[in-house]
Amino acid sequence: MNISVIKIGGNILDDEKSLSRFLDLFAAVEGAKILIHGGGKLASELCAQMNITVQMIDGRRVTDAETLKIITMVYAGYINKNIVALLQARSCNALGLSGADGNLIQAHKRINSKMDYGFAGDIDAINDQLLQSLLASGFTVVVSPLTHDKKGQLLNTNADTIAQEIARAMSVHGVVRLLYCFEKAGVLSDIEDESTVIPAINENNLQQLITNGTIHSGMLPKINNAFEAVRKGVYSVTIGKWDQLHLMLQGTSGTIIKQHS
Amino acid sequence: MNISVIKIGGNILDDEKSLSRFLDLFAAVEGAKILIHGGGKLASELCAQMNITVQMIDGRRVTDAETLKIITMVYAGYINKNIVALLQARSCNALGLSGADGNLIQAHKRINSKMDYGFAGDIDAINDQLLQSLLASGFTVVVSPLTHDKKGQLLNTNADTIAQEIARAMSVHGVVRLLYCFEKAGVLSDIEDESTVIPAINENNLQQLITNGTIHSGMLPKINNAFEAVRKGVYSVTIGKWDQLHLMLQGTSGTIIKQHS
Repeated sequence: MNISVIKIGGNILDDEKSLSRFLDLFAAVEGAKILIHGGGKLASELCAQMNITVQMIDGRRVTDAETLKIITMVYAGYINKNIVALLQARSCNALGLSGADGNLIQAHKRINSKMDYGFAGDIDAINDQLLQSLLASGFTVVVSPLTHDKKGQLLNTNADTIAQEIARAMSVHGVVRLLYCFEKAGVLSDIEDESTVIPAINENNLQQLITNGTIHSGMLPKINNAFEAVRKGVYSVTIGKWDQLHLMLQGTSGTIIKQHS
Repeated sequence: MNISVIKIGGNILDDEKSLSRFLDLFAAVEGAKILIHGGGKLASELCAQMNITVQMIDGRRVTDAETLKIITMVYAGYINKNIVALLQARSCNALGLSGADGNLIQAHKRINSKMDYGFAGDIDAINDQLLQSLLASGFTVVVSPLTHDKKGQLLNTNADTIAQEIARAMSVHGVVRLLYCFEKAGVLSDIEDESTVIPAINENNLQQLITNGTIHSGMLPKINNAFEAVRKGVYSVTIGKWDQLHLMLQGTSGTIIKQHS
């Protein structure tokens, strides 16, 4: 089975036309597919409307109880169900899940002696059997970035990480392509210049690209995560622009990361 | 297969302790089960906080776009995912769905030449195959009262009606018991006196109970709906108090409605 695991970020979700165009492209993707969505501006807007102050420690958002409530409403409710309804209108049999549903993603509250991240969840296990069974039945699974601790507590987990863990877990069931759709055309050697997309990175040219400064430091964690995924069984990771999804799948747009070229 | 279709109302959802106690009882229900939840005060509170005025026409709430957004966030997001996480903590493999997920409940926007109910959905079809397949795989399905029109629009649908339509649709797959859990001990002949529960109503004593005034007029629509369900294949409909769920299932609490005694 060929499985596409596709992650979209907040910017697409904030604009109705972009979302509609993206979902046209997504619905047309052949084979089994899983969509993981992040949040968008709506959660922050709602926090502001309800006078919930977003706490930041070391540049990271702290998920307090009120913020978790908003995130659950917006991500698992509003965004997830609207995406599902819009895909159903495109003859794509979408079914939306959070990490609590069917114990899809079990996690634990992040423990750090130095600081309290609040209700942030680090992933323990992906229920790949549930995903496999739904995909085999013809469903497209739409995942909201919430996990749970199996003790009744929902937790907020980074959508990029969820996408990566799902891709890794599903790689025992087939050939998994992981695609990160964002605003840039791919990994750029010059961040100001969209024409400088690095088309492919593999174990052979990685070190060279780092040494000669083509991959700048800010991009390194993302690249390292992608390599971790391909080393653990994911066929390829592609980073590219959301409106090029069809071309990313063909391998003619974005940056593709494979263990070997 | 024995299937219990259980509906809970808003009052249970508004109180953490009641919800916890109810979910203990629900998790202990044997056999296949489906939970349908209504809303609670949270949606109205959120509307008030965000200065959304609830429009009422002839005593019915009109679901405008902003109200639908709140309902989607609260019902399909906050309430549904918290119930699922709390059931998972009780070793009940819950999976939460809205009517859009997997095309579970297709509906159309209510059409009425006299008034516009907004985004209110009347049910066209229940995807009983999806429910049957999930129940057979050991999942407990938790349904939020949202439907969709398969054209991308989510719709607000009464949870009592959803419970009834699901019970009817599932009756081709097994013996279906439909249970409405609310604040009263059952159908009361004296609404002020909890000791006046009518234990059983069937086709034989229905007319008599109406004629002698034992079933008062306000209760008639609910009773008629229950009879419609049993006439269309549902084994029984029980109306009773949420903290008596186990006794309702044993037939020793609440009012049971069957076609024949």
